[in-house]
Amino acid sequence: MKLLIVIIQNKDANKLQSQFVKNNIQQTKLSTTGGFLKSGNTTFMIGIKDERVQEVLDLIKKVSRKREQYMTPPVNLDGGVSDASYPVKIEVGGSIVMEMPMDNLYHF
Amino acid sequence: MKLLIVIIQNKDANKLQSQFVKNNIQQTKLSTTGGFLKSGNTTFMIGIKDERVQEVLDLIKKVSRKREQYMTPPVNLDGGVSDASYPVKIEVGGSIVMEMPMDNLYHF
Amino acid sequence: MKLLIVIIQNKDANKLQSQFVKNNIQQTKLSTTGGFLKSGNTTFMIGIKDERVQEVLDLIKKVSRKREQYMTPPVNLDGGVSDASYPVKIEVGGSIVMEMPMDNLYHF
Ligand code: NI
Ligand code: NI
Ligand code: NI
Repeated sequence: MKLLIVIIQNKDANKLQSQFVKNNIQQTKLSTTGGFLKSGNTTFMIGIKDERVQEVLDLIKKVSRKREQYMTPPVNLDGGVSDASYPVKIEVGGSIVMEMPMDNLYHF
Repeated sequence: MKLLIVIIQNKDANKLQSQFVKNNIQQTKLSTTGGFLKSGNTTFMIGIKDERVQEVLDLIKKVSRKREQYMTPPVNLDGGVSDASYPVKIEVGGSIVMEMPMDNLYHF
Repeated sequence: MKLLIVIIQNKDANKLQSQFVKNNIQQTKLSTTGGFLKSGNTTFMIGIKDERVQEVLDLIKKVSRKREQYMTPPVNLDGGVSDASYPVKIEVGGSIVMEMPMDNLYHF
Protein backbone atom coordinates (compact mmCIF):
# COMPACT_ATOMS: atom_id res chain seq x y z
CA MET A 1 0.00 0.00 0.00
CA LYS A 2 1.01 3.59 -0.58
CA LEU A 3 -0.18 6.93 0.70
CA LEU A 4 -0.27 9.51 -2.08
CA ILE A 5 -0.51 13.16 -1.04
CA VAL A 6 -1.53 15.17 -4.10
CA ILE A 7 -1.28 18.97 -4.11
CA ILE A 8 -2.90 20.71 -7.08
CA GLN A 9 -4.17 24.15 -8.03
CA ASN A 10 -7.77 24.79 -7.00
CA LYS A 11 -8.79 25.35 -10.63
CA ASP A 12 -7.92 21.71 -11.43
CA ALA A 13 -9.21 20.15 -8.19
CA ASN A 14 -12.83 19.44 -9.15
CA LYS A 15 -11.86 17.89 -12.47
CA LEU A 16 -9.33 15.65 -10.73
CA GLN A 17 -11.84 14.62 -8.07
CA SER A 18 -14.33 13.64 -10.80
CA GLN A 19 -11.65 11.47 -12.40
CA PHE A 20 -10.93 9.80 -9.06
CA VAL A 21 -14.63 9.05 -8.52
CA LYS A 22 -15.03 7.73 -12.10
CA ASN A 23 -12.04 5.42 -11.64
CA ASN A 24 -13.09 4.26 -8.17
CA ILE A 25 -10.08 5.81 -6.42
CA GLN A 26 -11.02 6.70 -2.85
CA GLN A 27 -9.66 10.01 -1.64
CA THR A 28 -10.01 12.60 1.11
CA LYS A 29 -9.73 16.29 0.38
CA LEU A 30 -7.92 18.74 2.69
CA SER A 31 -8.03 22.53 2.62
CA THR A 32 -4.54 23.84 2.10
CA THR A 33 -2.98 27.19 1.30
CA GLY A 34 0.06 28.48 -0.52
CA GLY A 35 3.52 27.06 -0.52
CA PHE A 36 4.33 24.48 -3.16
CA LEU A 37 2.09 26.05 -5.79
CA LYS A 38 1.77 29.78 -6.11
CA SER A 39 -2.01 30.21 -6.11
CA GLY A 40 -4.66 28.52 -3.94
CA ASN A 41 -4.39 24.78 -3.86
CA THR A 42 -6.14 21.63 -2.73
CA THR A 43 -4.64 18.51 -1.18
CA PHE A 44 -5.94 14.98 -1.67
CA MET A 45 -4.89 11.99 0.43
CA ILE A 46 -5.19 8.63 -1.31
CA GLY A 47 -4.54 5.17 0.12
CA ILE A 48 -3.88 2.85 -2.83
CA LYS A 49 -2.39 -0.52 -3.73
CA ASP A 50 1.13 -0.42 -5.13
CA GLU A 51 -0.01 -1.75 -8.51
CA ARG A 52 -2.45 1.14 -9.00
CA VAL A 53 0.00 3.99 -8.21
CA GLN A 54 0.95 4.51 -11.87
CA GLU A 55 -2.73 4.70 -12.86
CA VAL A 56 -3.31 7.47 -10.31
CA LEU A 57 -0.18 9.34 -11.42
CA ASP A 58 -1.36 9.17 -15.05
CA LEU A 59 -4.74 10.67 -14.12
CA ILE A 60 -3.08 13.50 -12.19
CA LYS A 61 -0.67 14.20 -15.03
CA LYS A 62 -3.53 14.33 -17.53
CA VAL A 63 -5.63 16.76 -15.45
CA SER A 64 -3.13 19.03 -13.77
CA ARG A 65 0.11 19.20 -15.75
CA LYS A 66 1.66 22.66 -15.98
CA ARG A 67 0.55 24.37 -19.21
CA GLU A 68 0.40 27.74 -20.93
CA GLN A 69 -2.77 29.75 -21.30
CA TYR A 70 -3.62 33.21 -22.64
CA MET A 71 -5.19 35.68 -20.24
CA THR A 72 -6.43 39.22 -20.91
CA PRO A 73 -5.13 41.41 -18.07
CA PRO A 74 -7.70 43.65 -16.37
CA VAL A 75 -8.07 47.14 -17.91
CA ASN A 76 -5.99 49.86 -16.25
CA LEU A 77 -8.41 51.84 -14.04
CA ASP A 78 -5.97 54.16 -12.31
CA GLY A 79 -6.48 57.14 -14.66
CA GLY A 80 -3.39 56.64 -16.79
CA VAL A 81 -3.32 56.57 -20.60
CA SER A 82 -5.92 54.06 -21.78
CA ASP A 83 -3.98 51.18 -23.31
CA ALA A 84 -5.56 48.42 -25.30
CA SER A 85 -5.42 45.28 -23.19
CA TYR A 86 -3.58 42.47 -25.01
CA PRO A 87 -3.83 38.83 -23.96
CA VAL A 88 -0.65 37.59 -22.30
CA LYS A 89 0.71 34.09 -21.96
CA ILE A 90 0.69 32.73 -18.36
CA GLU A 91 1.54 29.36 -16.85
CA VAL A 92 -1.30 27.54 -15.07
CA GLY A 93 -1.79 24.20 -13.35
CA GLY A 94 0.92 21.91 -12.14
CA SER A 95 0.87 19.49 -9.25
CA ILE A 96 3.06 17.78 -6.69
CA VAL A 97 2.60 14.17 -5.60
CA MET A 98 4.35 12.69 -2.56
CA GLU A 99 4.41 8.90 -2.36
CA MET A 100 4.86 7.33 1.07
CA PRO A 101 4.93 3.68 2.18
CA MET A 102 1.83 2.52 4.06
CA ASP A 103 1.93 -0.39 6.50
CA ASN A 104 -1.81 -0.96 6.85
CA LEU A 105 -5.17 0.40 5.77
CA TYR A 106 -8.13 -0.44 8.03
CA HIS A 107 -11.87 -0.04 7.40
CA PHE A 108 -14.15 -0.14 10.43
CA MET B 1 6.77 5.02 15.83
CA LYS B 2 3.77 5.14 13.52
CA LEU B 3 1.71 7.88 11.96
CA LEU B 4 -1.99 7.03 12.06
CA ILE B 5 -4.28 9.06 9.80
CA VAL B 6 -7.85 8.52 10.97
CA ILE B 7 -10.81 9.59 8.80
CA ILE B 8 -14.20 9.41 10.50
CA GLN B 9 -17.69 10.84 10.06
CA ASN B 10 -18.21 14.23 11.71
CA LYS B 11 -20.96 12.81 13.90
CA ASP B 12 -18.44 10.50 15.61
CA ALA B 13 -15.51 12.95 15.72
CA ASN B 14 -16.12 14.63 19.08
CA LYS B 15 -16.69 11.35 20.86
CA LEU B 16 -13.48 9.93 19.41
CA GLN B 17 -11.51 13.02 20.37
CA SER B 18 -12.77 12.72 23.97
CA GLN B 19 -11.57 9.12 24.03
CA PHE B 20 -8.15 10.20 22.75
CA VAL B 21 -7.87 12.87 25.44
CA LYS B 22 -9.01 10.45 28.17
CA ASN B 23 -6.43 7.88 27.08
CA ASN B 24 -3.63 10.44 26.70
CA ILE B 25 -3.30 9.94 22.94
CA GLN B 26 -2.04 13.16 21.36
CA GLN B 27 -3.68 14.07 18.07
CA THR B 28 -4.13 16.90 15.60
CA LYS B 29 -7.44 17.46 13.84
CA LEU B 30 -7.67 18.46 10.17
CA SER B 31 -10.70 19.77 8.31
CA THR B 32 -11.48 17.44 5.46
CA THR B 33 -14.32 16.94 3.03
CA GLY B 34 -15.91 14.08 1.16
CA GLY B 35 -14.21 11.19 -0.52
CA PHE B 36 -13.65 8.11 1.57
CA LEU B 37 -16.82 8.52 3.61
CA LYS B 38 -20.02 9.75 2.06
CA SER B 39 -20.97 12.56 4.46
CA GLY B 40 -18.78 15.23 6.09
CA ASN B 41 -15.74 13.85 7.81
CA THR B 42 -12.89 14.74 10.12
CA THR B 43 -9.27 13.65 9.94
CA PHE B 44 -7.00 13.07 12.93
CA MET B 45 -3.22 12.67 12.72
CA ILE B 46 -1.66 10.67 15.55
CA GLY B 47 2.02 9.99 16.20
CA ILE B 48 2.20 6.89 18.40
CA LYS B 49 4.56 4.17 19.60
CA ASP B 50 4.24 0.83 17.80
CA GLU B 51 3.10 -0.94 20.96
CA ARG B 52 0.10 1.42 21.38
CA VAL B 53 -1.25 1.14 17.80
CA GLN B 54 -3.67 -1.66 18.68
CA GLU B 55 -5.03 0.35 21.63
CA VAL B 56 -5.77 3.29 19.31
CA LEU B 57 -7.39 1.00 16.71
CA ASP B 58 -9.61 -0.51 19.41
CA LEU B 59 -10.80 2.95 20.51
CA ILE B 60 -11.59 3.92 16.92
CA LYS B 61 -13.44 0.67 16.28
CA LYS B 62 -15.50 1.15 19.43
CA VAL B 63 -16.54 4.72 18.60
CA SER B 64 -16.90 4.78 14.84
CA ARG B 65 -17.68 1.33 13.49
CA LYS B 66 -20.27 1.21 10.69
CA ARG B 67 -23.72 0.51 12.16
CA GLU B 68 -27.41 0.62 11.29
CA GLN B 69 -29.81 3.28 12.55
CA TYR B 70 -33.45 4.16 11.91
CA MET B 71 -34.21 7.58 10.46
CA THR B 72 -37.58 9.16 9.71
CA PRO B 73 -37.29 10.73 6.24
CA PRO B 74 -38.48 14.36 5.93
CA VAL B 75 -42.16 14.77 4.98
CA ASN B 76 -42.84 15.27 1.28
CA LEU B 77 -43.50 19.01 0.80
CA ASP B 78 -43.79 19.17 -2.97
CA GLY B 79 -47.58 18.99 -3.12
CA GLY B 80 -47.87 15.31 -3.97
CA VAL B 81 -50.12 12.86 -2.19
CA SER B 82 -49.39 13.14 1.54
CA ASP B 83 -47.73 9.88 2.55
CA ALA B 84 -47.15 8.82 6.09
CA SER B 85 -43.42 9.00 6.76
CA TYR B 86 -42.04 5.64 7.95
CA PRO B 87 -38.65 5.27 9.64
CA VAL B 88 -36.09 3.68 7.32
CA LYS B 89 -32.90 1.81 8.12
CA ILE B 90 -29.71 3.66 7.14
CA GLU B 91 -26.01 2.95 7.63
CA VAL B 92 -24.05 5.49 9.70
CA GLY B 93 -20.52 5.79 11.01
CA GLY B 94 -17.53 3.93 9.74
CA SER B 95 -13.92 5.00 9.61
CA ILE B 96 -10.67 4.53 7.70
CA VAL B 97 -7.28 4.34 9.38
CA MET B 98 -4.01 4.55 7.43
CA GLU B 99 -0.88 3.38 9.28
CA MET B 100 2.46 4.71 8.09
CA PRO B 101 5.99 4.16 9.39
CA MET B 102 7.51 7.15 11.21
CA ASP B 103 11.28 7.65 11.45
CA ASN B 104 11.31 10.30 14.17
CA LEU B 105 9.04 12.42 16.32
CA TYR B 106 10.54 15.65 17.70
CA HIS B 107 9.24 18.00 20.39
CA PHE B 108 10.75 21.48 20.52
CA MET C 1 13.38 11.94 0.65
CA LYS C 2 11.43 12.62 3.81
CA LEU C 3 7.98 13.99 4.58
CA LEU C 4 8.09 16.36 7.52
CA ILE C 5 4.77 17.21 9.17
CA VAL C 6 5.31 20.28 11.35
CA ILE C 7 2.68 21.34 13.91
CA ILE C 8 3.27 24.72 15.53
CA GLN C 9 1.29 27.36 17.42
CA ASN C 10 -0.46 29.88 15.19
CA LYS C 11 1.49 32.73 16.75
CA ASP C 12 4.75 31.27 15.35
CA ALA C 13 3.38 30.11 12.00
CA ASN C 14 3.94 33.21 9.87
CA LYS C 15 7.49 33.66 11.10
CA LEU C 16 8.29 30.03 10.34
CA GLN C 17 6.75 30.27 6.87
CA SER C 18 8.93 33.33 6.12
CA GLN C 19 11.99 31.34 7.14
CA PHE C 20 10.95 28.48 4.84
CA VAL C 21 10.50 30.87 1.90
CA LYS C 22 13.82 32.61 2.60
CA ASN C 23 15.64 29.25 2.70
CA ASN C 24 13.88 27.88 -0.38
CA ILE C 25 12.07 25.12 1.52
CA GLN C 26 8.82 24.29 -0.25
CA GLN C 27 5.89 23.68 2.04
CA THR C 28 2.11 23.37 2.09
CA LYS C 29 0.06 24.74 4.96
CA LEU C 30 -2.96 22.93 6.42
CA SER C 31 -5.61 24.29 8.76
CA THR C 32 -5.58 22.28 11.94
CA THR C 33 -7.14 22.56 15.37
CA GLY C 34 -6.31 21.52 18.89
CA GLY C 35 -4.72 18.38 20.09
CA PHE C 36 -0.93 18.25 20.24
CA LEU C 37 -0.54 21.89 21.24
CA LYS C 38 -2.94 23.58 23.62
CA SER C 39 -3.89 26.70 21.60
CA GLY C 40 -4.68 27.07 17.88
CA ASN C 41 -2.08 25.57 15.61
CA THR C 42 -0.94 25.32 12.01
CA THR C 43 0.42 22.31 10.16
CA PHE C 44 3.03 22.42 7.41
CA MET C 45 3.85 19.51 5.09
CA ILE C 46 7.36 19.53 3.66
CA GLY C 47 8.91 17.14 1.14
CA ILE C 48 12.69 17.39 1.54
CA LYS C 49 15.93 15.58 0.74
CA ASP C 50 17.44 13.56 3.61
CA GLU C 51 20.51 15.79 3.76
CA ARG C 52 18.40 18.92 4.38
CA VAL C 53 16.28 17.52 7.25
CA GLN C 54 18.60 18.85 9.96
CA GLU C 55 18.56 22.33 8.38
CA VAL C 56 14.74 22.36 8.52
CA LEU C 57 14.71 21.10 12.12
CA ASP C 58 17.15 23.86 13.12
CA LEU C 59 14.89 26.53 11.59
CA ILE C 60 11.85 25.14 13.41
CA LYS C 61 13.71 24.97 16.70
CA LYS C 62 14.87 28.56 16.33
CA VAL C 63 11.39 29.94 15.59
CA SER C 64 9.06 27.82 17.69
CA ARG C 65 10.83 26.38 20.69
CA LYS C 66 8.82 26.40 23.93
CA ARG C 67 9.68 29.52 25.94
CA GLU C 68 8.50 31.60 28.88
CA GLN C 69 6.78 34.94 28.51
CA TYR C 70 5.16 37.41 30.91
CA MET C 71 1.48 38.20 30.40
CA THR C 72 -0.74 40.63 32.32
CA PRO C 73 -3.98 38.79 33.10
CA PRO C 74 -7.22 40.64 32.25
CA VAL C 75 -8.67 42.77 35.09
CA ASN C 76 -11.30 41.04 37.21
CA LEU C 77 -14.68 42.40 36.01
CA ASP C 78 -17.04 40.24 38.06
CA GLY C 79 -17.61 42.77 40.85
CA GLY C 80 -15.17 41.31 43.37
CA VAL C 81 -12.53 43.28 45.24
CA SER C 82 -10.47 45.19 42.67
CA ASP C 83 -7.03 43.60 42.68
CA ALA C 84 -4.03 45.06 40.97
CA SER C 85 -3.22 42.89 37.97
CA TYR C 86 0.35 41.54 38.13
CA PRO C 87 2.14 40.05 35.10
CA VAL C 88 2.40 36.25 35.29
CA LYS C 89 4.85 33.89 33.64
CA ILE C 90 3.30 31.63 30.96
CA GLU C 91 4.74 29.10 28.54
CA VAL C 92 4.27 29.86 24.82
CA GLY C 93 5.36 28.28 21.56
CA GLY C 94 6.57 24.77 21.09
CA SER C 95 6.25 22.50 18.08
CA ILE C 96 6.03 18.87 17.02
CA VAL C 97 7.74 17.48 13.93
CA MET C 98 6.95 14.03 12.52
CA GLU C 99 9.49 12.62 10.06
CA MET C 100 8.30 9.97 7.63
CA PRO C 101 10.09 8.13 4.83
CA MET C 102 9.07 9.21 1.31
CA ASP C 103 9.44 6.88 -1.68
CA ASN C 104 8.98 9.44 -4.44
CA LEU C 105 8.20 13.11 -5.06
CA TYR C 106 6.74 13.98 -8.48
CA HIS C 107 6.27 17.36 -10.14
CA PHE C 108 3.85 17.54 -13.07
NI1 NI D 1 2.83 -1.27 -0.08
NI1 NI E 1 8.20 2.60 14.55
NI1 NI F 1 14.79 9.33 1.54
